[in-house]
Amino acid sequence: MKIKVINPNTTASMTAKIGAAACAVASPGTEIVACHPEMGPAAIEGHYDEALSVIGVLDEIRKGEVDGMDGYVIACFGDPGLLAARELAKAPVLGIAEAAMHAASFITMGFSIVTTLERTRGIAQALVDRYGMTRFCRQIRTIDLPVLSLEDGTEAETAVLQECHRAMKEDGCGAIVLGCGGMADLAAPLSQQLGIPVIDGVGVAVKFVEALAGLGLGTSKVGELAYPTSKPCLGMLSAFTRST
Amino acid sequence: MKIKVINPNTTASMTAKIGAAACAVASPGTEIVACHPEMGPAAIEGHYDEALSVIGVLDEIRKGEVDGMDGYVIACFGDPGLLAARELAKAPVLGIAEAAMHAASFITMGFSIVTTLERTRGIAQALVDRYGMTRFCRQIRTIDLPVLSLEDGTEAETAVLQECHRAMKEDGCGAIVLGCGGMADLAAPLSQQLGIPVIDGVGVAVKFVEALAGLGLGTSKVGELAYPTSKPCLGMLSAFTRST
Amino acid sequence: MKIKVINPNTTASMTAKIGAAACAVASPGTEIVACHPEMGPAAIEGHYDEALSVIGVLDEIRKGEVDGMDGYVIACFGDPGLLAARELAKAPVLGIAEAAMHAASFITMGFSIVTTLERTRGIAQALVDRYGMTRFCRQIRTIDLPVLSLEDGTEAETAVLQECHRAMKEDGCGAIVLGCGGMADLAAPLSQQLGIPVIDGVGVAVKFVEALAGLGLGTSKVGELAYPTSKPCLGMLSAFTRST
Amino acid sequence: MKIKVINPNTTASMTAKIGAAACAVASPGTEIVACHPEMGPAAIEGHYDEALSVIGVLDEIRKGEVDGMDGYVIACFGDPGLLAARELAKAPVLGIAEAAMHAASFITMGFSIVTTLERTRGIAQALVDRYGMTRFCRQIRTIDLPVLSLEDGTEAETAVLQECHRAMKEDGCGAIVLGCGGMADLAAPLSQQLGIPVIDGVGVAVKFVEALAGLGLGTSKVGELAYPTSKPCLGMLSAFTRST
Amino acid sequence: MKIKVINPNTTASMTAKIGAAACAVASPGTEIVACHPEMGPAAIEGHYDEALSVIGVLDEIRKGEVDGMDGYVIACFGDPGLLAARELAKAPVLGIAEAAMHAASFITMGFSIVTTLERTRGIAQALVDRYGMTRFCRQIRTIDLPVLSLEDGTEAETAVLQECHRAMKEDGCGAIVLGCGGMADLAAPLSQQLGIPVIDGVGVAVKFVEALAGLGLGTSKVGELAYPTSKPCLGMLSAFTRST
Amino acid sequence: MKIKVINPNTTASMTAKIGAAACAVASPGTEIVACHPEMGPAAIEGHYDEALSVIGVLDEIRKGEVDGMDGYVIACFGDPGLLAARELAKAPVLGIAEAAMHAASFITMGFSIVTTLERTRGIAQALVDRYGMTRFCRQIRTIDLPVLSLEDGTEAETAVLQECHRAMKEDGCGAIVLGCGGMADLAAPLSQQLGIPVIDGVGVAVKFVEALAGLGLGTSKVGELAYPTSKPCLGMLSAFTRST
Repeated sequence: MKIKVINPNTTASMTAKIGAAACAVASPGTEIVACHPEMGPAAIEGHYDEALSVIGVLDEIRKGEVDGMDGYVIACFGDPGLLAARELAKAPVLGIAEAAMHAASFITMGFSIVTTLERTRGIAQALVDRYGMTRFCRQIRTIDLPVLSLEDGTEAETAVLQECHRAMKEDGCGAIVLGCGGMADLAAPLSQQLGIPVIDGVGVAVKFVEALAGLGLGTSKVGELAYPTSKPCLGMLSAFTRST
Repeated sequence: MKIKVINPNTTASMTAKIGAAACAVASPGTEIVACHPEMGPAAIEGHYDEALSVIGVLDEIRKGEVDGMDGYVIACFGDPGLLAARELAKAPVLGIAEAAMHAASFITMGFSIVTTLERTRGIAQALVDRYGMTRFCRQIRTIDLPVLSLEDGTEAETAVLQECHRAMKEDGCGAIVLGCGGMADLAAPLSQQLGIPVIDGVGVAVKFVEALAGLGLGTSKVGELAYPTSKPCLGMLSAFTRST
Repeated sequence: MKIKVINPNTTASMTAKIGAAACAVASPGTEIVACHPEMGPAAIEGHYDEALSVIGVLDEIRKGEVDGMDGYVIACFGDPGLLAARELAKAPVLGIAEAAMHAASFITMGFSIVTTLERTRGIAQALVDRYGMTRFCRQIRTIDLPVLSLEDGTEAETAVLQECHRAMKEDGCGAIVLGCGGMADLAAPLSQQLGIPVIDGVGVAVKFVEALAGLGLGTSKVGELAYPTSKPCLGMLSAFTRST
Repeated sequence: MKIKVINPNTTASMTAKIGAAACAVASPGTEIVACHPEMGPAAIEGHYDEALSVIGVLDEIRKGEVDGMDGYVIACFGDPGLLAARELAKAPVLGIAEAAMHAASFITMGFSIVTTLERTRGIAQALVDRYGMTRFCRQIRTIDLPVLSLEDGTEAETAVLQECHRAMKEDGCGAIVLGCGGMADLAAPLSQQLGIPVIDGVGVAVKFVEALAGLGLGTSKVGELAYPTSKPCLGMLSAFTRST
Repeated sequence: MKIKVINPNTTASMTAKIGAAACAVASPGTEIVACHPEMGPAAIEGHYDEALSVIGVLDEIRKGEVDGMDGYVIACFGDPGLLAARELAKAPVLGIAEAAMHAASFITMGFSIVTTLERTRGIAQALVDRYGMTRFCRQIRTIDLPVLSLEDGTEAETAVLQECHRAMKEDGCGAIVLGCGGMADLAAPLSQQLGIPVIDGVGVAVKFVEALAGLGLGTSKVGELAYPTSKPCLGMLSAFTRST
Repeated sequence: MKIKVINPNTTASMTAKIGAAACAVASPGTEIVACHPEMGPAAIEGHYDEALSVIGVLDEIRKGEVDGMDGYVIACFGDPGLLAARELAKAPVLGIAEAAMHAASFITMGFSIVTTLERTRGIAQALVDRYGMTRFCRQIRTIDLPVLSLEDGTEAETAVLQECHRAMKEDGCGAIVLGCGGMADLAAPLSQQLGIPVIDGVGVAVKFVEALAGLGLGTSKVGELAYPTSKPCLGMLSAFTRST
């Protein structure tokens, strides 16, 4: 089984970290193909960045379909382009926010999310609502540091730990959902330090894609997620033209 | 990895069917232990039946903890006793309604449920709402035949097929969720006949428990799902007494 | 009119307190039959305890139907087994959480609940949502003491009073709903001390059952709450077998 | 105990019918004072009529407070002026829509409302939502005849019966809520004809006010329903001026 | 184009302030007719006041229809009588709470409301929900001073400024909605002091009525907002009788 | 005042139609600049098309900011890129779905949407929910013809008319919202034929942008819609790099 794990931003160190997290949990027969797009923003910290990243995500899905991938993971906590990506693929496509929140709802009645920039709180909240997780999400917490600060280590990691402690004390949560693909390496150590499950969406998404693909379940091609209709796409996006 | 798949009713033929469905999808390293309780109703067709079945489910979880199970599946579409079972176990516990609906939300924007008796519609609807799947569930449909009619074959199977066709036409759904553990053997043939994903919760629940256990994620013991507090349990339930 | 008031736990002193509260408000022509089951947990402090208590509640309803009761009250704030009990009875069955919250919504735009253990907060919240009281419930507050601490008096009573004061100040509530059958004796003194209505569900449930029964209104036997279908119930639960 | 039952429109025959329904269910010690305002519309069939009726309702509450009433019922299915009335009174005030819907939620998982004019459907729906009854209300049905057609008998009564039959068949409801004070005399015969509970809000409201008043529970004077603040009221409304 | 701006209370100084705010933003071709009713309360600080004010609002709409107005603004933050007023008019009718909240949702993902008395918080919250603004409204804040204190200047203005600062800091809001017609003159200075948009509903409502009327859009006379049906209105409200 | 009206697809005839509709309603002092992007899909009929169109929308906003626009309209009923566009601009930015739905909620209690392809129903429903219009939207109806069929005239127009008639009869709606920028020319004739308001979002959006800009209200730069943070954007999207 081949699963493509797409880091939607163009920062290679984050792709490496995400790839490592995916490989660490993959089943024996699973091949992880970690990548990032050739185009797009270096980090995703708002609606504008997200919109720009989607082009690259779709490009990777398109190429993945040619390469016969059995499933995809979109490894940014905003799950950018998730529904558009599903239109392109018959294989299952999961976002890491989606996977992490659903998994959390299986093991606790209340989780808190710890993410990066304050300005992305609304994006996370919209996903919580869209996935039906409103009742399970106690709080969204931010360290208010840029996404790429996670690549530099200590300061951001300390801030995440502190926010997790606050979440346990103030929100009464039973688990933590990490709100950034760049935190994939923090789940294990944090879980040990805190004594409650700390959930990294990259790992969960890989396992859930394995589960779905293993069951022969892929994106339904009837209804809203059917393949895109044929039509020209102009200008610099001409490679995205769909023809029957 | 050992996963206990509990059929909450006491009908052995249904346990066999559920067990077969679980074994069919289990990963190489997974051992499936299918069982049903020693006590309780022969089928679950309402709140009263469900309440009675919970005692048996909890009994099986209790024994499973002694036997060192790595996860549990509650294989009745009402997910009876799910939260009580989670209090008893540190391993992950999934209900088949829960697993099926979440999986459906990963591959379509709208699913319909096809279940047995009309009178259980409200129970299914309450689960849809509790799991946050309101937005994804287009319709709950019933064949209005008893649960055990599924053990007799043709009539019930035909009714399920007809209702699936109606769901596709009238609800515009992109996938079907089968609303009874006793339908576990119908998912594959129906999926072929209908041309859309048909989801049996038994299979999904086994794979998702494998996924969670594989990630080291189990029920959070902090908060609402912590182990039950110590106290005597009197009369014929004395075996359920908890002591520190 | 005979109303059976069922304390779902097996602690006799709490049954006595609940029975006294019921008798104190019953109309001249009403006979109160207070009881607790022969089996089950000594207190109800979570999902596991609740599931175990339901067997006893159903047993008491079953016997009550033989004795020709005109209505029932389930006197634990989790309203355990309420819908299953309604399936068994044609007479009205009310839970004390249900009764108290509805009454509160008749006399204030915002009430707070004061209950016992922190871990049961989620159970109370689920009831608030199920009964449609989300808009009226400002806050659920806990003293975080075990249920049976209410039988010992002062410490728990003081904690309840303090939490009520906090509720008035911080939640801006117009009334308090007491979140435990064991607090039935506190409503009157607290109401005087606080100067706002303090609502004990036992009293309200008795009066509402009187009201419904007086109007000839009982559980609808059409739909989800119809009598349970006939089927064997095995093992130690064989007494719960239903036959036509 | 004296309960004032206010018909908010100025049609005397409807007041008589409502008064009779109230007297029929009142407890031995309860005195029913049925009335209608001296001013306002002859029937209430929309927002404009409702707004005009509120002045009269408030006038009757104001006089009732002088007369020492122990509780009030507002006997129009739109519950006009309910919250304003509660500000004026310390005694409990119930609307018949409110009372009927809450009672219905105690005895069935799904009720349908049968009311008069199609154009008032939205008013009924807003009350369903405001009272938290969204989950319990299966459908609002209208006979699309004017309110006062109920005073003329046969045609309207036949239409109500037909709509009830449709509700049972198409909505799967377990009880009917009658959506007009002028239908108070239809509950008993319809209930017999249909074989499910048919709920008239006048009767329920009287019994619930008896229940609350019997428990010493009245409108909370802390918060949103506190007595109106002192201030002049000019012109033809000068009688409504509040002074400390 | 003639737009009638109705101050629903009877305080002339507030009418003057509201009229000035309306004139300041009106387009060249727009004539503003500011007024208050001849009857009703001097300020609106609860449900009772609001109910009384509606008579006057409807009277002004009735006269406005005779005078050929092209649109109406109801300039009290409770939007009293809005739906009843719409029944009377074919021209568009907007409330200032409605206009302000919708405008806020066009320019920010989260606004806070700053209003006067604490006891009116529930009225504001009900409007937030009715208009679908629940997701956009971060917080409702009150200065807990009477409405007419705004006519006296400094103390109330300072309190509003302080509450706006708190809203920015504690709620993370991107805009402020002023919660009283009497604050119409504060929007501009506050906006400068705070550095975020501060929205006065009077201005927005005037511009939105201009927009709708300019597009030829008025209240739909099909359905719930159709003209009131003919019927006598008795007593001191006889002037409100509707005849075909 | 200069308002840029962006047709997010690359079909010139649709841009012309949208531009004409905008000019027809613009105030004397308003200059309409109608355009479509240089890149992207010829029509928008799903999530994939929408994602691709956003790049072009952002490109036009970016250029518009250089050109000193006073406001923007995104003239596709999916409101593609609305929040990303708002991050880029301080001037107000409105989508036509957003504008049309809000306007509809000002003049009726229930509207129906008539749009093109069945597969875009979910996109429209998600917007209804996001804008808080769930309570006002009675139904979403589709003619199930491609977007560009509207450019060919008769067949699509007839289908729209038929669906409007069905909406009036079956949904009881008081107004129609046209669900495609390419229907901008149909609002006036349909409104005359149907006798209820038919709302084209292009016209409303232009007038609402005029209203907001006239009041000095633009996108709040505090919070979620602040300017995008500086960072490189790689590859073919390098023109979208943001630097301080």
